[in-house]
Amino acid sequence: MNRGETELVKYFAAKGKLNAAKFPIGIGDDMAQIKLSKKSSVLITTDMLLDGVHFDGKKASPEQIGYKSMATSLSDCAAMATVPLAAVVSVALPRNYGSAKLKRLHKGLLNAAKKYNCPLIGGDMTSWGRPLAVSVAMLSVPAKTKPVKRSTAKTGDVICITGTLGGSIVKRHLEFEPRLKESLAIARAGANAMIDISDGLSTDLNHICRLSKKGAVIEADKIPVSRNAKGLESALNDGEDFELLFMMPKKKFERLKKQWRFKVKLTAIGRVTKGGTVKIKKSGGKAVELLPKGYDHLKENSKF
Amino acid sequence: MNRGETELVKYFAAKGKLNAAKFPIGIGDDMAQIKLSKKSSVLITTDMLLDGVHFDGKKASPEQIGYKSMATSLSDCAAMATVPLAAVVSVALPRNYGSAKLKRLHKGLLNAAKKYNCPLIGGDMTSWGRPLAVSVAMLSVPAKTKPVKRSTAKTGDVICITGTLGGSIVKRHLEFEPRLKESLAIARAGANAMIDISDGLSTDLNHICRLSKKGAVIEADKIPVSRNAKGLESALNDGEDFELLFMMPKKKFERLKKQWRFKVKLTAIGRVTKGGTVKIKKSGGKAVELLPKGYDHLKENSKF
Repeated sequence: MNRGETELVKYFAAKGKLNAAKFPIGIGDDMAQIKLSKKSSVLITTDMLLDGVHFDGKKASPEQIGYKSMATSLSDCAAMATVPLAAVVSVALPRNYGSAKLKRLHKGLLNAAKKYNCPLIGGDMTSWGRPLAVSVAMLSVPAKTKPVKRSTAKTGDVICITGTLGGSIVKRHLEFEPRLKESLAIARAGANAMIDISDGLSTDLNHICRLSKKGAVIEADKIPVSRNAKGLESALNDGEDFELLFMMPKKKFERLKKQWRFKVKLTAIGRVTKGGTVKIKKSGGKAVELLPKGYDHLKENSKF
Repeated sequence: MNRGETELVKYFAAKGKLNAAKFPIGIGDDMAQIKLSKKSSVLITTDMLLDGVHFDGKKASPEQIGYKSMATSLSDCAAMATVPLAAVVSVALPRNYGSAKLKRLHKGLLNAAKKYNCPLIGGDMTSWGRPLAVSVAMLSVPAKTKPVKRSTAKTGDVICITGTLGGSIVKRHLEFEPRLKESLAIARAGANAMIDISDGLSTDLNHICRLSKKGAVIEADKIPVSRNAKGLESALNDGEDFELLFMMPKKKFERLKKQWRFKVKLTAIGRVTKGGTVKIKKSGGKAVELLPKGYDHLKENSKF
């Protein structure tokens, strides 16, 4: 999120103050949490994917669009280290989309639903003379650990990421695997804060630091750049990596690395600092401020 | 829903078979139900409202659009006789929508959230160079009675509606009051089946009868026509009345009418029959088939 968007979210949260006992996690995190009883709670997230912004309807198959719509919300479940429960979908269909294409879109939704054990239990559809829009709302339940928030990074924590970053646009953004199992292991190991990288590392790191009232220093050399990325800038700012960015005490991270049995790699890229600034240190150089240059939801900066 | 849409929903339900123990109410009702434990469950619905279909962005105020987006899902909670719990919203914003307008849209959402005690707990927003789309997902919990389904009307039940029908487009579709309190009283009185009239009486009555594997005979003279309706056809087919259509044994309905303390009126318009056909009897005439001539989600039959 950029500054304008952050201010708006703050405004929305202030205008619609929530009862913290009933909603322990409210507006501004990857998911909101609703207490149902002393022992039971559910979490909810929603994401709207738009033709020309999140996918190119001329290039992406209906199955890919369906899959990505579910996977984006599944990635939110992963960002909180929670277990997906069920999803509903609402779609705005272009004129003459046709039932064959709609069935393929549905197949893509189901592919993700089945793969990640998150049934699609309802929906809503309407036609209009405009491009395709798909909105998924997804429920999850806490794992054995508490949901991991964005606002609770601690000074001194190592900053870690799963996988590699950048160049997702080439293909990965349509086929990525939400890091659900990995996130549960990360939470069990003792992560203090977590977010999924949807808007780009520069933007999402700034965001989690701002919410935690912390700063950060990361090292450019340590950032695992994807082979599809066009260099470091691309790894920092491209967005839609849907990898996990998390913070935890160094000792716990060392233990996590030893126990790690997943294919995706884990990398420590820096440390959480006291100050409010996010910095990047290039090899041999000084640390300079890392500005949020990732995706801005309120500018119309379509990726296609 | 028209026949094509019904076939599609059947197809979706068949392809994505749900575990009935975990999801007692699945695809095809006003909301889906998720069992969380022996005693606890939540229900969920989602609705996408589109500029040029569900509202005219040039005439409706942002507050009205926000209110209607929430009220449409609240009406689903009423249709199941459940109690709203919380909502999330995702929005696709036209280029240069601007934060002033966005705050007004948010105000409209909050107006409904506060009025019906259903906090807005999260959201997602993206800009695109297209008209406004607003998708709300809403959770509810069962009241003391079980959620009232669409598929459980019984032969001999009286067919009843709240309020008056038709001409909602004049104004009411932007300002209607979801019948939440009324629906709880109707459920307590012993309704066998219920739906909210969103697509028009002709379409929604056909729909509930098809799901219940029943027929119906209604009397044209008894249909309470709104003063904004353009005659009977308008009351039968206009849609977006958001009144409740329900079926219950005659004796229970008589008792309900005696106890009724709400402003909105209750009218019995006919009876549930064994056959599979929905018929309407005009005064002095024969009963003729009542075809679903209401809103068709898969035709682009915008109302504006």
